[in-house]
Amino acid sequence: MPASSVPDIVVGRLPLYLRALSQMTTEGKEVTSSQELGERLGISSAQIRKDLSQFGEFGKQGTGYAIPFLADQLRRILRVKSIWDVALVGVGDLGRAVAHYAGFVDRGYRIVALYDNDPRKIGEQIGSFTIMDSATMVSNIRSREIHVAMLAVPASDAQQVSARLIEAGVRAILCYAPTSIVVPDTVHVQYIDPVLHLQRMTYYLG
Amino acid sequence: MPASSVPDIVVGRLPLYLRALSQMTTEGKEVTSSQELGERLGISSAQIRKDLSQFGEFGKQGTGYAIPFLADQLRRILRVKSIWDVALVGVGDLGRAVAHYAGFVDRGYRIVALYDNDPRKIGEQIGSFTIMDSATMVSNIRSREIHVAMLAVPASDAQQVSARLIEAGVRAILCYAPTSIVVPDTVHVQYIDPVLHLQRMTYYLG
Repeated sequence: MPASSVPDIVVGRLPLYLRALSQMTTEGKEVTSSQELGERLGISSAQIRKDLSQFGEFGKQGTGYAIPFLADQLRRILRVKSIWDVALVGVGDLGRAVAHYAGFVDRGYRIVALYDNDPRKIGEQIGSFTIMDSATMVSNIRSREIHVAMLAVPASDAQQVSARLIEAGVRAILCYAPTSIVVPDTVHVQYIDPVLHLQRMTYYLG
Repeated sequence: MPASSVPDIVVGRLPLYLRALSQMTTEGKEVTSSQELGERLGISSAQIRKDLSQFGEFGKQGTGYAIPFLADQLRRILRVKSIWDVALVGVGDLGRAVAHYAGFVDRGYRIVALYDNDPRKIGEQIGSFTIMDSATMVSNIRSREIHVAMLAVPASDAQQVSARLIEAGVRAILCYAPTSIVVPDTVHVQYIDPVLHLQRMTYYLG
């Protein structure tokens, strides 16, 4: 089945499988099963087998999955066998924490450019990067062929900044601003808003 | 239809609707439609009408939704008409950014306790709170009847800390650690791991 026909909800579970396999590798495991993966993830083993079968045959009946092989296949499918350059826009408290986060690079992403529009921040050094003036963002991102961006600006700026990122050639935006942004169909957006997750849980608390 | 029979995926969209309604209020709007909400959110108007109809009749045919009324009903359904006390465990870079984030309180949540196990951090003041020793966490959370927690500890500590939070009476955990945790059916967990979102997008980038 061509990858383009795989439902997005299935695509969304693949990174969970890859993360669990990486943890198993860290623990020294070499083989796993859909049952074991399912117990770790709270997903049924049947669902896991069905999801993976959309992309090929990765395990043998009765012997389970070879972890290094399956992890490698998932990296290929998710296109993280090489590392994506990422631009980060907005270097407030959250942007700083994201810039310092060490967990991106071994999972396929590397922040290579920081932008802000606050004159007091422009020129400041964060790790090995200098915060650049977001006025230069469009030409800078375009010339460096960066296609992935994280947005940690205030909600009121998110739509306008997104439009400029898209103008610069960005095709995937991870939006930390607590708002929805409108983008063309050719651009992918994912959101991180902790309150959405909290409300989804407190709904169930009597 | 009783609320317990509503699919979790529908529950997960209600916070998006509430957030969009709050933004419309900020913009001075008083009435909206499922079409307008749908355009902002990238969700079909039919889906929005169907989701809301699971909980009651909130709009009139042809006149749309009164924003203050619908927002108030969603706050009631999501149980955020009063404010939940929240414990934050792990005050590293990310925990600090979360502790400083000003966007929780007017959406139903208030961080009231910070815990860490690093002796250099214990006693430190963050805003109006003092970082407490996580050794005291279980009794402290239990006596204060805190039921919601955010977890910003390293992945390797997440399972063990979760177990202690649950022992203390926590029933909803927002996990920032990049790992899956196993909890009883009576406890709700949501995850924030930016790499999962990035991988879900780069899958589509050729």
